[in-house]
Amino acid sequence: MSPKITVELLRQLRQAMKNSKYIAEPIQAYIVPSGDAHQSEYISPCDCRREFICGFNGSAGIAIVTEQHAAMWTDGRYFLQASQQMDNNWTLMKMGLKETPSQEDWLIGILPENSRVGVDPWIIAADQWKNMFKALAGAGHSLVAVQDNLIDAIWDGRPHRPSTQLITLGLRYTGLTWQDKVTALRAKMSERKISWFVVTALDEIAWLFNLRGSDIEYNPVFFAYAIVGLSTLRLFVDQKRLADPAVREHLQLDTTSQPEMSIQAAPYESVYTELLAICAALGPKDKVWISDKASCALTQVIPKAHRTLIPYTPICLAKAVKNATEIEGMKMAHIKDAVALCELFAWLEKEIPKGMVTEISAADKAEEYRSQQKDFVGLSFPTISSVGPNGAIIHYRPLPETNRTLSLNELYLIDSGAQYMDGTTDVTRTVHFGTPSAFEKECFTSVLKGHIAVSAAVFPNGTKGHLLDSFARAALWDSGLDYLHGTGHGVGCFLNVHEGPCGISYKTFADEPLEAGMIVSDEPGYYEDGSFGIRIENVVLVVPTKTKHNYRNRGSLTFEPLTLVPIQLKMIDTDQLTKRERDWVNEYHRKCREVVGTELERQGRKDGLDWLIRETQPIL
Amino acid sequence: MSPKITVELLRQLRQAMKNSKYIAEPIQAYIVPSGDAHQSEYISPCDCRREFICGFNGSAGIAIVTEQHAAMWTDGRYFLQASQQMDNNWTLMKMGLKETPSQEDWLIGILPENSRVGVDPWIIAADQWKNMFKALAGAGHSLVAVQDNLIDAIWDGRPHRPSTQLITLGLRYTGLTWQDKVTALRAKMSERKISWFVVTALDEIAWLFNLRGSDIEYNPVFFAYAIVGLSTLRLFVDQKRLADPAVREHLQLDTTSQPEMSIQAAPYESVYTELLAICAALGPKDKVWISDKASCALTQVIPKAHRTLIPYTPICLAKAVKNATEIEGMKMAHIKDAVALCELFAWLEKEIPKGMVTEISAADKAEEYRSQQKDFVGLSFPTISSVGPNGAIIHYRPLPETNRTLSLNELYLIDSGAQYMDGTTDVTRTVHFGTPSAFEKECFTSVLKGHIAVSAAVFPNGTKGHLLDSFARAALWDSGLDYLHGTGHGVGCFLNVHEGPCGISYKTFADEPLEAGMIVSDEPGYYEDGSFGIRIENVVLVVPTKTKHNYRNRGSLTFEPLTLVPIQLKMIDTDQLTKRERDWVNEYHRKCREVVGTELERQGRKDGLDWLIRETQPIL
Repeated sequence: MSPKITVELLRQLRQAMKNSKYIAEPIQAYIVPSGDAHQSEYISPCDCRREFICGFNGSAGIAIVTEQHAAMWTDGRYFLQASQQMDNNWTLMKMGLKETPSQEDWLIGILPENSRVGVDPWIIAADQWKNMFKALAGAGHSLVAVQDNLIDAIWDGRPHRPSTQLITLGLRYTGLTWQDKVTALRAKMSERKISWFVVTALDEIAWLFNLRGSDIEYNPVFFAYAIVGLSTLRLFVDQKRLADPAVREHLQLDTTSQPEMSIQAAPYESVYTELLAICAALGPKDKVWISDKASCALTQVIPKAHRTLIPYTPICLAKAVKNATEIEGMKMAHIKDAVALCELFAWLEKEIPKGMVTEISAADKAEEYRSQQKDFVGLSFPTISSVGPNGAIIHYRPLPETNRTLSLNELYLIDSGAQYMDGTTDVTRTVHFGTPSAFEKECFTSVLKGHIAVSAAVFPNGTKGHLLDSFARAALWDSGLDYLHGTGHGVGCFLNVHEGPCGISYKTFADEPLEAGMIVSDEPGYYEDGSFGIRIENVVLVVPTKTKHNYRNRGSLTFEPLTLVPIQLKMIDTDQLTKRERDWVNEYHRKCREVVGTELERQGRKDGLDWLIRETQPIL
Repeated sequence: MSPKITVELLRQLRQAMKNSKYIAEPIQAYIVPSGDAHQSEYISPCDCRREFICGFNGSAGIAIVTEQHAAMWTDGRYFLQASQQMDNNWTLMKMGLKETPSQEDWLIGILPENSRVGVDPWIIAADQWKNMFKALAGAGHSLVAVQDNLIDAIWDGRPHRPSTQLITLGLRYTGLTWQDKVTALRAKMSERKISWFVVTALDEIAWLFNLRGSDIEYNPVFFAYAIVGLSTLRLFVDQKRLADPAVREHLQLDTTSQPEMSIQAAPYESVYTELLAICAALGPKDKVWISDKASCALTQVIPKAHRTLIPYTPICLAKAVKNATEIEGMKMAHIKDAVALCELFAWLEKEIPKGMVTEISAADKAEEYRSQQKDFVGLSFPTISSVGPNGAIIHYRPLPETNRTLSLNELYLIDSGAQYMDGTTDVTRTVHFGTPSAFEKECFTSVLKGHIAVSAAVFPNGTKGHLLDSFARAALWDSGLDYLHGTGHGVGCFLNVHEGPCGISYKTFADEPLEAGMIVSDEPGYYEDGSFGIRIENVVLVVPTKTKHNYRNRGSLTFEPLTLVPIQLKMIDTDQLTKRERDWVNEYHRKCREVVGTELERQGRKDGLDWLIRETQPIL
């Protein structure tokens, strides 16, 4: 990795910071956040502005350029990578270290008096703006919204914002028409006396209109905004996309349906002026919902007295609880995904002894098998395919320079998933193709005990996922081990593989309670630096369960695994398991064999089937 | 219970609200919070202003009186009691019900335009003031600090603020001189560049100066403030208390020690003017620490630019981690407490068949046995002594009108504790003197499994207590049961039986990580409304433990029970226990027998000893 040369770019940016074409008065600093206008987790190449200006391409980081300095803040996962990708015009600010100043403190320390700090209000969230604004104001500086993005201004050959073909999803995938979703949403708005809801998150718009796109890799979303009124409906999207007759038909753009379901389509960029117009006509009691993660630009259009910020929007909450059709689809997607993985593992067993399978080729093979399955659309995230010590790097992604060969001597961890028209998958298995060490087995078994403790947990309706996190760790803690990540995240249905508002993590308190129909991952792990990584991940569905008693009629919940891929028996030290845990493993494998075996047979995949049968023998 | 007649009192209060003697301009509403100036959990009779004005004497409630209305907000625990204690001049506002307005909304709904709402700034916390101020300002009203308390103004025969004799604690109780504590505190202040620390919590002042009082029932504290500077030390306390030669000697008031340890003693009330003087002389970089729970009056004396609000003060943090002497003292206190309880249970077994023992007489007997122990000072909280259905009322306290007789047919729950010079205790046992039902045993055993799961938990250094809460519930959840309170609270050493900053509860996220030397309670329960209550509570010490591995060298912790009172074997369904749980019970009882048995023998208490021996038989 050689660093990006940024002398000329920084010179150009600093000129733009003084250029009256972009800004009336010069600014003394310019902030370049890493997100897009929708606070997406993954972003499109046209939005990789922070990477463009400094060279660092990790998922988290904020760059600030002043007249004299350039600095970039990122967290511990990326210290090495950032230091290799940035040239010496840049100072790496290591977040989390005591000596590292906050962005505010750093700016206050170096700026001349009464400085003006600029930022693009479209890619900074309203609350981040507020904090930065306050801190700078306290020191006599001002934070200024620069409407023209200065990186875009100097970025020769910046990729266009994608405008991929839209996919329309019918009832057999969604279970609910978009009209029914709009009606339910409006009912919630009426109940809370809300007149307007500005929808900014891309997956929420995709879900609401039963549309998908491929503007962002791995996430089947498309760039758009929506504004839902009690009797009007606006969709802001590149108008070219609406030329497709299937889309016109799906959205009923040419048919006079009920007037309150008639969509007013407008260009993506016009959301700002349209929202301005709406806000100008607000009655004294009108309230407008917008996510508290929405951009500063859109948030500030809404007058404070009318603005109601919400941490989780009603779409986010409705989307999290899957309906019967979505659950059926997710189950089908997971069966197909399991077929692909059974084939992969059978193939690996045959090929590894030849010494030619690498992390990259194994990941490619997994994708190949998945792509043979019906309704396959693409991967749901970059495959983590890691051998031995690479497995201990939690967010590892194989690159040519790190690519290891799979062997009979090292653990292999593969965390992968796909988007199918009927559902999204995410599964991690850790396997050994030779003979694992006693320590590897011990750790694997502790991780498995944690996985089972969550998967088999029974808990009252209304329990928040974070309360289950410690169950996943108890067995590891007992022997002095742990893992430094959460235990689970919400999973979308042919949508983002990471979604709110539920999850299983010690890090949050603000997650929403688990409800039947929610889908989360269960993925404890253990990572021995420099040696190996272990993670066992299933996607699980929250389901009601009967208990002997029923305190306060609250009802109880548990999880049903959707992922049906055998857990390698060779890695389990069965003596460490209780009878209840052994029963869980056997029942899980019985179901894998029954459900996935039937499908492997139907598809005539004999290698995968043989592997499945062998790997699902009951343990004693 | 007949309600308090408040017509005349309300008339007087409303006159005071217009009386220029107290306030320049009339106020249209007056808020009466329930706390004292130190945000104490228990308050002194002179501070029971809310009870005085409305008659309701529960621990939580806020009264507001306007020209036309009077309303009192309290939570579900107290709906019945409040409705019985208040006359029909008062509206009961049931907090937690959807239809109940917040205090702000209620005021805004009924106040005339531009109203002035008054409150005593000494008994409202700064953050509550801020919220109320904002809400009222948004509706055109103002919140006004009324320096003279209007309840005190109309309260004939209001009790004096107590000024009990101070108890000085020597090194053999505290392990650290107050001078050493001050030095350590100043080191922390210097490290954080803090010039002054305003100490407002009574238990923090008592701990810092190694003094105790009895101004508030159950809590061995005394009314005082302290202001700690880097080289000065001010103590604000009723000056009469400092006449005692032992106190003068302890505080070195007459001996010229090091000047920075020389205490400037001033009257309790003068803290305000002294803090004003200090703040007037602040340098531009001087910072002042004050708890974010401190009164609005004191907080606002400190100019905002110099004010640093802290959720947990450095004294709160230091106090929570007990030193070797304090741990020794706590252990001794718990042994003595166990002796008293063994005697109590032996006595109850003999007396109950005669049919004359009631909840109240049993509680009195428990106090009598405790008072026979060395260094006994008093109870640490009102004894919860409850038979059958009364046990299901979590905060039950027996009153003549609810007093039930102990019998062979109903469960008996006793939650009690004491203050000894060397430590504070808090223990709950649930016992049956006849034959428990299968359901009672089942519930008891599930609660016991939860108790053991916490007590025996192994977890990494730095784990917050709230992450252990679900361990206490897992067995109950499995059969559809639960309890609606936290699992544990911090316990002081001859100080408040409830203290921060650590605890074990699903309700918080802001608790401080557990460290070796901290002491908390472990008290899961189960409550069957109208029938019985079960709780098993030990006070436990956080101790380091060795594990097979040591991930990232973090080290591991577990708990050591300080409470050593047998858990009734008759109530345990041993088939429900795992081997590990049975071993825990046997080891716990072995230790009870060994440690408490020795003391019972030394004290010649044969009844208690016989009972102990019988109740600590190993189970299979």
